[in-house]
Amino acid sequence: MHAIKDIIDLALREDIGPGDITTDNLILDEKLGRGIILAKQPLILAGIEVAKEVFFHLDSKIEFHTQYKDQDKISEGATILEVCGSLRTLLKGERTALNFLQRLSGIATHVRSYVEIIGDLPVRLVDTRKTTPGLRSLEKYAVRMGGAYNHRMGLYDGVLIKDNHIAACGGIRRAVETIRSKISHLVKIEVEVADMVQVREALDAKADVIMLDNMTIFQIREAVAMIDGKALVEVSGMVTKKDLKELAGTGVDIISAGALTHSAPSVDISMRIV
Amino acid sequence: MHAIKDIIDLALREDIGPGDITTDNLILDEKLGRGIILAKQPLILAGIEVAKEVFFHLDSKIEFHTQYKDQDKISEGATILEVCGSLRTLLKGERTALNFLQRLSGIATHVRSYVEIIGDLPVRLVDTRKTTPGLRSLEKYAVRMGGAYNHRMGLYDGVLIKDNHIAACGGIRRAVETIRSKISHLVKIEVEVADMVQVREALDAKADVIMLDNMTIFQIREAVAMIDGKALVEVSGMVTKKDLKELAGTGVDIISAGALTHSAPSVDISMRIV
Amino acid sequence: MHAIKDIIDLALREDIGPGDITTDNLILDEKLGRGIILAKQPLILAGIEVAKEVFFHLDSKIEFHTQYKDQDKISEGATILEVCGSLRTLLKGERTALNFLQRLSGIATHVRSYVEIIGDLPVRLVDTRKTTPGLRSLEKYAVRMGGAYNHRMGLYDGVLIKDNHIAACGGIRRAVETIRSKISHLVKIEVEVADMVQVREALDAKADVIMLDNMTIFQIREAVAMIDGKALVEVSGMVTKKDLKELAGTGVDIISAGALTHSAPSVDISMRIV
Amino acid sequence: MHAIKDIIDLALREDIGPGDITTDNLILDEKLGRGIILAKQPLILAGIEVAKEVFFHLDSKIEFHTQYKDQDKISEGATILEVCGSLRTLLKGERTALNFLQRLSGIATHVRSYVEIIGDLPVRLVDTRKTTPGLRSLEKYAVRMGGAYNHRMGLYDGVLIKDNHIAACGGIRRAVETIRSKISHLVKIEVEVADMVQVREALDAKADVIMLDNMTIFQIREAVAMIDGKALVEVSGMVTKKDLKELAGTGVDIISAGALTHSAPSVDISMRIV
Amino acid sequence: MHAIKDIIDLALREDIGPGDITTDNLILDEKLGRGIILAKQPLILAGIEVAKEVFFHLDSKIEFHTQYKDQDKISEGATILEVCGSLRTLLKGERTALNFLQRLSGIATHVRSYVEIIGDLPVRLVDTRKTTPGLRSLEKYAVRMGGAYNHRMGLYDGVLIKDNHIAACGGIRRAVETIRSKISHLVKIEVEVADMVQVREALDAKADVIMLDNMTIFQIREAVAMIDGKALVEVSGMVTKKDLKELAGTGVDIISAGALTHSAPSVDISMRIV
Amino acid sequence: MHAIKDIIDLALREDIGPGDITTDNLILDEKLGRGIILAKQPLILAGIEVAKEVFFHLDSKIEFHTQYKDQDKISEGATILEVCGSLRTLLKGERTALNFLQRLSGIATHVRSYVEIIGDLPVRLVDTRKTTPGLRSLEKYAVRMGGAYNHRMGLYDGVLIKDNHIAACGGIRRAVETIRSKISHLVKIEVEVADMVQVREALDAKADVIMLDNMTIFQIREAVAMIDGKALVEVSGMVTKKDLKELAGTGVDIISAGALTHSAPSVDISMRIV
Repeated sequence: MHAIKDIIDLALREDIGPGDITTDNLILDEKLGRGIILAKQPLILAGIEVAKEVFFHLDSKIEFHTQYKDQDKISEGATILEVCGSLRTLLKGERTALNFLQRLSGIATHVRSYVEIIGDLPVRLVDTRKTTPGLRSLEKYAVRMGGAYNHRMGLYDGVLIKDNHIAACGGIRRAVETIRSKISHLVKIEVEVADMVQVREALDAKADVIMLDNMTIFQIREAVAMIDGKALVEVSGMVTKKDLKELAGTGVDIISAGALTHSAPSVDISMRIV
Repeated sequence: MHAIKDIIDLALREDIGPGDITTDNLILDEKLGRGIILAKQPLILAGIEVAKEVFFHLDSKIEFHTQYKDQDKISEGATILEVCGSLRTLLKGERTALNFLQRLSGIATHVRSYVEIIGDLPVRLVDTRKTTPGLRSLEKYAVRMGGAYNHRMGLYDGVLIKDNHIAACGGIRRAVETIRSKISHLVKIEVEVADMVQVREALDAKADVIMLDNMTIFQIREAVAMIDGKALVEVSGMVTKKDLKELAGTGVDIISAGALTHSAPSVDISMRIV
Repeated sequence: MHAIKDIIDLALREDIGPGDITTDNLILDEKLGRGIILAKQPLILAGIEVAKEVFFHLDSKIEFHTQYKDQDKISEGATILEVCGSLRTLLKGERTALNFLQRLSGIATHVRSYVEIIGDLPVRLVDTRKTTPGLRSLEKYAVRMGGAYNHRMGLYDGVLIKDNHIAACGGIRRAVETIRSKISHLVKIEVEVADMVQVREALDAKADVIMLDNMTIFQIREAVAMIDGKALVEVSGMVTKKDLKELAGTGVDIISAGALTHSAPSVDISMRIV
Repeated sequence: MHAIKDIIDLALREDIGPGDITTDNLILDEKLGRGIILAKQPLILAGIEVAKEVFFHLDSKIEFHTQYKDQDKISEGATILEVCGSLRTLLKGERTALNFLQRLSGIATHVRSYVEIIGDLPVRLVDTRKTTPGLRSLEKYAVRMGGAYNHRMGLYDGVLIKDNHIAACGGIRRAVETIRSKISHLVKIEVEVADMVQVREALDAKADVIMLDNMTIFQIREAVAMIDGKALVEVSGMVTKKDLKELAGTGVDIISAGALTHSAPSVDISMRIV
Repeated sequence: MHAIKDIIDLALREDIGPGDITTDNLILDEKLGRGIILAKQPLILAGIEVAKEVFFHLDSKIEFHTQYKDQDKISEGATILEVCGSLRTLLKGERTALNFLQRLSGIATHVRSYVEIIGDLPVRLVDTRKTTPGLRSLEKYAVRMGGAYNHRMGLYDGVLIKDNHIAACGGIRRAVETIRSKISHLVKIEVEVADMVQVREALDAKADVIMLDNMTIFQIREAVAMIDGKALVEVSGMVTKKDLKELAGTGVDIISAGALTHSAPSVDISMRIV
Repeated sequence: MHAIKDIIDLALREDIGPGDITTDNLILDEKLGRGIILAKQPLILAGIEVAKEVFFHLDSKIEFHTQYKDQDKISEGATILEVCGSLRTLLKGERTALNFLQRLSGIATHVRSYVEIIGDLPVRLVDTRKTTPGLRSLEKYAVRMGGAYNHRMGLYDGVLIKDNHIAACGGIRRAVETIRSKISHLVKIEVEVADMVQVREALDAKADVIMLDNMTIFQIREAVAMIDGKALVEVSGMVTKKDLKELAGTGVDIISAGALTHSAPSVDISMRIV
């Protein structure tokens, strides 16, 4: 909630600055209008509350009508949201509201296409920390709206032991034991491993999750067999749609893909005053 | 400058929150390290100062070495930046620094590919306000690094009269005259037009810039001929790389494309501790 | 809007701090009152919405009645605004609301006296960046309420090439061409010149606006003749009321005067609880 | 300290916004310069540390040289401060630094002219809360630099019981006793009175300070005689330079004048790059 | 007011962060609930408006019912406040609201036990600046609700001359005279003294308040006799409940005790959803 | 880091406000001093970096000397920290630095006394969310310095399903399954149970941690036996030092106690200028 209000405030400040010199000089303060936000392509909706909040932040008398909510599949041409009130407010908020909607729905739509490839396979597709600076919470929300899951929100709510941590501690076991003795009992410990020797060490150290980093499909299968349910297995690396299906069939529990957020194209959404 | 510090602060807060529980518990405070930020693909660099500022914001003792600056063409495998100092700081700042670099260099690289299509033609390619909320200044900076130009920064530093403004004022002439009588003499007036009748009206109203909205190549040529140097001509709409060359040859002065920012894929950049 | 809320918040914080120790200890929370804000001298009103917002920021249940709006001419003794609601709120907000009103109406009133001297002459009187730190937007708004115009809002929304820029670039032509190749096509370029040689150079460089800096009336006339409509002409420097009429008759397009803001005396406005 | 940094930050943000488009495009980043801040009229200096902080806030490598400090009398033509470093920084900070200096030194200079009228008379000239919103601390500091004194900083650090408080409590004695029983023992109680009956009541209530509101010189003398050292006596109201001397000779302890801050004209200070 | 909103905002941000992952995932957005905030021990209430504001800050549609107000004595088992509205809001705000209530009522309850020891003796028990960082205003408010008084709020609203100030000025008289010539006439001057010689000096310097620092009961009586009403007398130091009665009988005017805030245990208050 | 700087800034603002009127008026700006921060009782140190940061925030030229670090046992009379530099800074920062140190070391010292009772027993003592508003991160840090552990930082980094969540979902199993299908795979799920039936349900639902709420020692033993290592067992409720040893011997894994933070008395630490 705070995160949403802060970034909306920032976005409106950077767009409006000391004032919308076109609208403030041409549109009378009391003039009313009705804006129709339209899907120009099929999409999965994410960010409708954010879009409303943009207009509401400018003017608490704006009213909204919609039959959709986030996570809905929207057809090309459908009216996502109707916004009624001061015409000045509609014109000032339009671009910022659309910028949020296009990006967040873009992520949700992009993620959905990955999720559909996985289908019923018992694998969880998750995001990473490769998000746009300042939009972490919103983009991770959009990932959920697309049907995938979140990895940790940041460095503070999950342990992920990587090669540098391992090197600095002198081994996986030392690293896992050290951190287990220090962190909250509610947080699981994930270890990133690069080969079978490390998989074995992570298992022995009783890691809760083992992340297989840039392994081949063959190695992944081998690792899944060795781990055999004693830890959750995550694969990471350059996950593309092409090999997603095969990857999902290896028996891993989790597939993480930075592309869910960093490579999602915006979807086309526009507003028309009617 | 303020914009950069604010968004870096926000980005680090959302990633680190109350602390990097892995690093703070496994890496000694005094341990030093050296990080190498690498281009994993050819790219146009944008954001190197932002990346430095991320680490510097965490720890003013971090040192940097580089032979590149923004706008440079970087080959795959090249070391963009070397970051030396506290290992904790390197690990805490890594993701945020890369998130900025990947996005901004992604935009610059994407923009450059458009710019190269235009080549020597006397046309200026410009961005729009379709930027990521909170990153307006940085993304517009990246567009310049890619070799294109900026349209207005926001609603406050340029006049763009659109259909709703025209309707509310009762015609283009009334709108242009009204706003000319109110705004600073340093700001030009641009009018968005949809057909030849409106082009004529905008010319008569002495608009400084005329934006041809979603016209066909044929109409654009006709409009350029009618305007005949009496105003700058901008084309806008769904500009794709495919028709960019043809568009650039119509004699228009400016081509604006939201895709420069909203559809730029991230480039692949990573950091290795050595 | 943001600018107004931020400065109101700052002003109330600096005045009330941890609490109004007189009012909080002597006036019951539930006691109601009615305050009458009075003009103690004739004035041009500016800031009535700001004054309302001060009280509203403290207490959203306050109600207002008025028959005036900014830009109106107010007679001595007239009631500018009636404020009804919690007596505590009236007493806490009084000074801050008046401090805004007195200053902004002071500027509007001061500006109007300049504007009346110019009368029907086709010259635009504009402000400068010599405003009170933190009040830029509000003071420039007050200038408009007084009937004059705004120069650029800040360093970001207009180009003004001064002697140091010219020196650093090696001449006016180089400076104008360099900047034209870099900035948005919506921004005009103004050049400050000191003599006829520079006027000629600026004309040749196709500057959009030429600012004559501290020239004599004679030189100004000569410059106007040479420029002959090929650029807008602005005069700047120590503009006093005394020579304003003569200056306005020289044929220049724009007269800028820092005195509009930095030397406007406050007008006398007070509040009475009735 | 906090107050200074906050308002400087605000002032630079409103002036520079997303960037100084003239300077950033025309002056090379590495170019150095030297700026000379000059008094264009005789003045009492106030705000030199603020001016330094403006440049320092933009760039911590800027260096300063001066032989003056606040409270000094500066002759016309004297160099107040020399500022050396990045030319970009000098040009970006110039206007904001001068806006502070001109206003604060304007107040100090204005105040000094009042103080000189009072001369050796044992009367303390003090300011009021009629200050520019957001600049309270700085303007009250400038008053001290001019040789006068501060009344309370805000509503939180001094008790001033006015007519509305008295009416709400049912009399001066009730008001004074109520508040004495509630506030800190370190804060004095001042009561505003309008006639001799109220002076008597305030005396009986053991008010620490009695403020005579808009009384004639005759009444003031009478009140001073009645109070006879049992409370401090303050006069307030429309204090002009003309009657200041006479007022100061009535035997009152304190004269408060809103004009010290709200009617101080800016002094003329400029910067030259050399 | 500002202080309350700021610290509530900070407290909710640190508790909720990017979201309440339990509640947001298990409780439907539209589900309503009713929460009963209960006293689990007898207590003096302080902070009920803060508790309301916590929920209100999250959701302006929450409603409250109570028969109590701050300063009331609450019995064990009594319902302090009923909170009705969105169940999500109740669960998200619960802990933060209780953390405020428990601490502030803890202080009020603790203070009341000291106040009762003093009974009718004409002595004022006051707090110090030994408060929790960030909670100064609220904790000092709770002290008042407990029936004691406030010393100065901070370093800005009262003068307290301590040994280091005296040493730096070369004696008490010099220190008192220097500061009297500089500060507002509304602020009293308190001097901290360690022995009878200093008491005499402070009296001669006409200090308004004399603070006896860590003196024995015998010395205190001697000092009270010497001062004899010519200044207010404050005792400070390790004031315990045990010797409070005796101390209060020595004739001093003020007893200050850091323990009122820094050693107040929280009281037990909980919330039950019904 | 951000959390520390923000709360230090807030604390200094509330204490110093517009200025330390005693020190600024009595101590020369250039005067240097040396402050000795002393333990007036035996204590476990926590917050020494915070204390340094308080002075550093005011003045970056302050220097520090110490032989201690957080978590150290300090004897009565020992010098915790030596602070050298501007005397004004020492006097302005003193109270705020001490307020942090006294509270944080108070918590660490209090926690250590609990930890010593537990001794070698394989039980982890953890804190709760019952912390002072605004100080969550710092107080949880102090708990670690005292030798205990942290439960979740807030509502965002751990799942704790309580009675209201269970009721809203229609049972423990439904609640656990629902949330497992939604949250990150790195977060464990804890369920609060009130009797053996619920313990069984939580076990069947494969909760990671089971919290026994307000059970008797007898019930706790029974629950531990039933759970038998299939989940971590936490006991919560009114944990007192008296029954801590017995509780720790029941075989539970975790004991959580709000008293670690909400009932820790401040320790006595003072500063002397030498």
